[in-house]
Amino acid sequence: MASSLIMSRRDLDFLLHDWLRVERLVERERYADHDRETFDAVLDLAEQLATEHFAPVNREADTHEPFVGEDGRVVQPESVRAALAAYTASGLPTSVFDAELGGMQLPFVVHQAASSWFQAASIGTFAYPFLAEGNANLLATYGTPEQVATYAVPVVEGRWYGTMALSEPQAGSSLGDITTRAVRQDDGSSYRLTGTKMWISGGDHELAENIVHLVLARTPDAAPGTKGISLFIVPKWLPADDGSVGERNDVALVGLNHKMGYRATTNTLLNFGEGLATPGGEAGAVGHLVGEEGRGLTYMFHMMNEARVSVGAGATALGYTGYLHSLEYARVRTQGRPLDRKDPTTPPVPLVEHADVRRMLLAQKSYVEGALALVLFCAHLVDESRTHPDADAAREAEQLLSLLTPVAKSWPSQWCLAANDLAIQVLGGAGYTRDHPVEQLYRDNRLNPIHEGTLGIQAQDLLGRKVLEGGGRSLGVLGARITATVEAARAVGGDPAAYADQLGRTWEELLRVTGVLWEKGDPALALANATPYLEAFGHVVVAWLWLEQLVAVGEGTEPFHDGKRAAARYFYAFELPTTGPRLDLLASLDTTTLDLDPTVL
Amino acid sequence: MASSLIMSRRDLDFLLHDWLRVERLVERERYADHDRETFDAVLDLAEQLATEHFAPVNREADTHEPFVGEDGRVVQPESVRAALAAYTASGLPTSVFDAELGGMQLPFVVHQAASSWFQAASIGTFAYPFLAEGNANLLATYGTPEQVATYAVPVVEGRWYGTMALSEPQAGSSLGDITTRAVRQDDGSSYRLTGTKMWISGGDHELAENIVHLVLARTPDAAPGTKGISLFIVPKWLPADDGSVGERNDVALVGLNHKMGYRATTNTLLNFGEGLATPGGEAGAVGHLVGEEGRGLTYMFHMMNEARVSVGAGATALGYTGYLHSLEYARVRTQGRPLDRKDPTTPPVPLVEHADVRRMLLAQKSYVEGALALVLFCAHLVDESRTHPDADAAREAEQLLSLLTPVAKSWPSQWCLAANDLAIQVLGGAGYTRDHPVEQLYRDNRLNPIHEGTLGIQAQDLLGRKVLEGGGRSLGVLGARITATVEAARAVGGDPAAYADQLGRTWEELLRVTGVLWEKGDPALALANATPYLEAFGHVVVAWLWLEQLVAVGEGTEPFHDGKRAAARYFYAFELPTTGPRLDLLASLDTTTLDLDPTVL
Repeated sequence: MASSLIMSRRDLDFLLHDWLRVERLVERERYADHDRETFDAVLDLAEQLATEHFAPVNREADTHEPFVGEDGRVVQPESVRAALAAYTASGLPTSVFDAELGGMQLPFVVHQAASSWFQAASIGTFAYPFLAEGNANLLATYGTPEQVATYAVPVVEGRWYGTMALSEPQAGSSLGDITTRAVRQDDGSSYRLTGTKMWISGGDHELAENIVHLVLARTPDAAPGTKGISLFIVPKWLPADDGSVGERNDVALVGLNHKMGYRATTNTLLNFGEGLATPGGEAGAVGHLVGEEGRGLTYMFHMMNEARVSVGAGATALGYTGYLHSLEYARVRTQGRPLDRKDPTTPPVPLVEHADVRRMLLAQKSYVEGALALVLFCAHLVDESRTHPDADAAREAEQLLSLLTPVAKSWPSQWCLAANDLAIQVLGGAGYTRDHPVEQLYRDNRLNPIHEGTLGIQAQDLLGRKVLEGGGRSLGVLGARITATVEAARAVGGDPAAYADQLGRTWEELLRVTGVLWEKGDPALALANATPYLEAFGHVVVAWLWLEQLVAVGEGTEPFHDGKRAAARYFYAFELPTTGPRLDLLASLDTTTLDLDPTVL
Repeated sequence: MASSLIMSRRDLDFLLHDWLRVERLVERERYADHDRETFDAVLDLAEQLATEHFAPVNREADTHEPFVGEDGRVVQPESVRAALAAYTASGLPTSVFDAELGGMQLPFVVHQAASSWFQAASIGTFAYPFLAEGNANLLATYGTPEQVATYAVPVVEGRWYGTMALSEPQAGSSLGDITTRAVRQDDGSSYRLTGTKMWISGGDHELAENIVHLVLARTPDAAPGTKGISLFIVPKWLPADDGSVGERNDVALVGLNHKMGYRATTNTLLNFGEGLATPGGEAGAVGHLVGEEGRGLTYMFHMMNEARVSVGAGATALGYTGYLHSLEYARVRTQGRPLDRKDPTTPPVPLVEHADVRRMLLAQKSYVEGALALVLFCAHLVDESRTHPDADAAREAEQLLSLLTPVAKSWPSQWCLAANDLAIQVLGGAGYTRDHPVEQLYRDNRLNPIHEGTLGIQAQDLLGRKVLEGGGRSLGVLGARITATVEAARAVGGDPAAYADQLGRTWEELLRVTGVLWEKGDPALALANATPYLEAFGHVVVAWLWLEQLVAVGEGTEPFHDGKRAAARYFYAFELPTTGPRLDLLASLDTTTLDLDPTVL
């Protein structure tokens, strides 16, 4: 597969450099060893590895779903392991980590842009290093030096992988209801865990020497609910004193979930402490506390912004590559004739000549390029919040990131899935077959509105928490940014100036509606239609980022620039207006869902 | 699986009897042998067969995709054959056919209601009798008595199956570009066909004694384009003189398409006349002309209304059963607590207590019950157009059916797929696994916006042809019906009266916009946004049918009636208003898609 069908380097460069001007980050101490050349080299490497090692395995990883062999081990295509070995060998697993851990100290935004190549090429394969990175990042932040050296460094080096083990069969998204127990042992430092974890991605496999599970559990006297949850390191294999892999821990693979897509990634049901193994001579999974008891969820959620932005980036990458595939098909495949030329003796025209096909391509382009701008903007905020030399600016970046995280997770999950749906439709019957990649992209992407917090949970996070943060301070930061963009676009004139007016009006209405929703201070009433609120909010944010892109395009005369103008025109004509009925519904404080007696369904 | 998870008999009875009053059809001569009891018996039988024979095979038919065995024959699970044998043995394949062909002369609307059980239980399995029925129906209408006796009767009896062989690899939806050749033989009656047909559902299998292909092809001197297309009967096996299966015809299975879903149905690439067999001693597929040369497409499209309504009904059934599954899950599965009770020591509540889950259930209900009303209304129009004793009323029914057919095909394909998406979301991670049926329903339903005319083609049919029919006469018929419903709903008062005002206003706006679109008489301009037009039109039609249902509910006091009220309330609050931005876009004669230079994409 040509790399031009995976992602658009031109668009990544435009967003990173013409728009976000990420090169300015190298003025900061953390990134001082970098420059445009090192950024480019990382993107070049990602493009090459994704094209040569990840894209070719994606279909086999789908058709050859992981299964548990007779020896109880997970069996997966060798090609998946080989692709991951190439990623490890490249050194990219170390991208974002500190130099003292052997990391490259690459800005997160550049790393995210590079990762998008792998997400587009084979998202299920790339999930292992993605999960490992989040795992090591958490330990690097909250672990003791010994924990970092023992558990994080092998993950940073790409030798071990890691998981986040949160959900349980009876609790699902309601983490306050988890029951896995962790009992402190007489040695005063280790714990023994017993319980069952569900939906654990990468929870077992033979792709790495070891798997470091980060497990939420309760100590015996813990408070009920989320305040009683602690975080533990529970490795599949206990490290030997020399750092190599030693005794088997008491963590058992109960079964693999059989999924519609995203199949390269194992998804597991795990039993901790059922007696599969008897480390140190007795049953019980050996674990080590991270930080303090009772603060497990705080640690976990501190890392959640990046994880959620990356999920949004994965959804974006799937949508993006689907768009590129359907565009290629629409350019090559001829069928039918324009409406003003029905003569059957004339040759048929490429699909892209039909208005409805153009609509489907423009819609995809407006979704996937809008989503890419969104996730890179948020990834850049991660860097800004960590490294901006001005404390106020850093705090502002953090506030904006916090506000936009539910949008960055959910908007691409929803609309880049819609893009994958349109990609299938452009191909017609061919798109419904496995002869083309678009059907798999659609199945793979269907996971994204579910994991790392469902759409509905993101909606409650946005409307129930984030817009209220600091008395609406984060919302104020966003408003100031939007106002600045509106003014810049008015200065550009022409279409951007008209869009600026449209955006300004919609933003004002969104603010007014937000006030109306919380006027009575009744969470049930305010959040009754949280999802339509999230949808409207997301469309406004992406409309803003389209305007930002047009300002960056300026007077650009390349076809690429005209493409940005065309997609922005589509978004402002076809998409932003759909917020109208949603905002009207919200402003009416509609209680259709609240009033429902569910027994009549 | 309980039958209550497949379809709702209560809703079918409500729509057939409380609303459409189909029992009045038995006053017509064609249906004089029927009464409510025979209608009920057919529905009882369908429910039983679907539950006992179709639902149990649906997952196996999906996981065990058909393949071509070493002997060149298609291999499928034996369970699929057994389910179809039970259907044949029940006599249901004869439902709609004339008594003289051994048929039951059941009204099409009752047959469609019965079929919905099978479509919901295993749509891919039911596709064989569905395709066979359309095939025999066409022959029964246009074939000679001998053709009917030889080819249609075995299909009516369920011994043979049939296909519609239209598409070709180079032509896709553009039928004017097909190139399959049919050359009249010296016997003066038979033809020999050569060419390749693509996307032929049920094009080969071992599920029946024979397969009757109805093939579009060109005679050597035929005009270019659609006017040069003729229709031919081409059986897989040539019938022997005694009516049994004789010599193999020269029709070769080149390959099976591997689909995302709908897998029980083989989808084939067929070669006609490549020399696989030499019937009568020479290569070439033996075929027989139906009707006159050059009228093939006319015959095919005359049957298209029913086929398209049935595709819409299939999409509806998939959406409906998905809704029932997700409702059951939401009632049983507990998770989390209401927003006003966060105390983690209190027990969790069923999912259905959460506002956002209710939204997803109400949305599904409003889509699937609205779609069921739509497809049964159109099926009833088939009966009305054929048997209404008043010629004007029959013609009016035909006009209305013609206008609504693209809506009946596309609206359920789009929105019941959206319902399946929501069903997955209600189940969360569980919905993404094969442990529950909803993921398969989503994959199966994704075919429906593609086959039998894509969404875009339906949109062009509606806006480019149907609304113009007879100078807008069909549109006038619909308008009169909507006005009558609006008046009836106003008489009911309360919410229905408010909905009536909302519907009346939206209908007027839709009419106005239709006029604006055609004001300049420029098809390219008028049809530039045909799909948003179809979407808005569909929402208005379904809003009308929701109001019709409320009028039929009247003062009903059962929970079922309150369920109808709740879903209608949802549709009028959340869905109908979304037509606003679409109609505004259309009224502006937006040329975003027309102006696009595709090289900038």
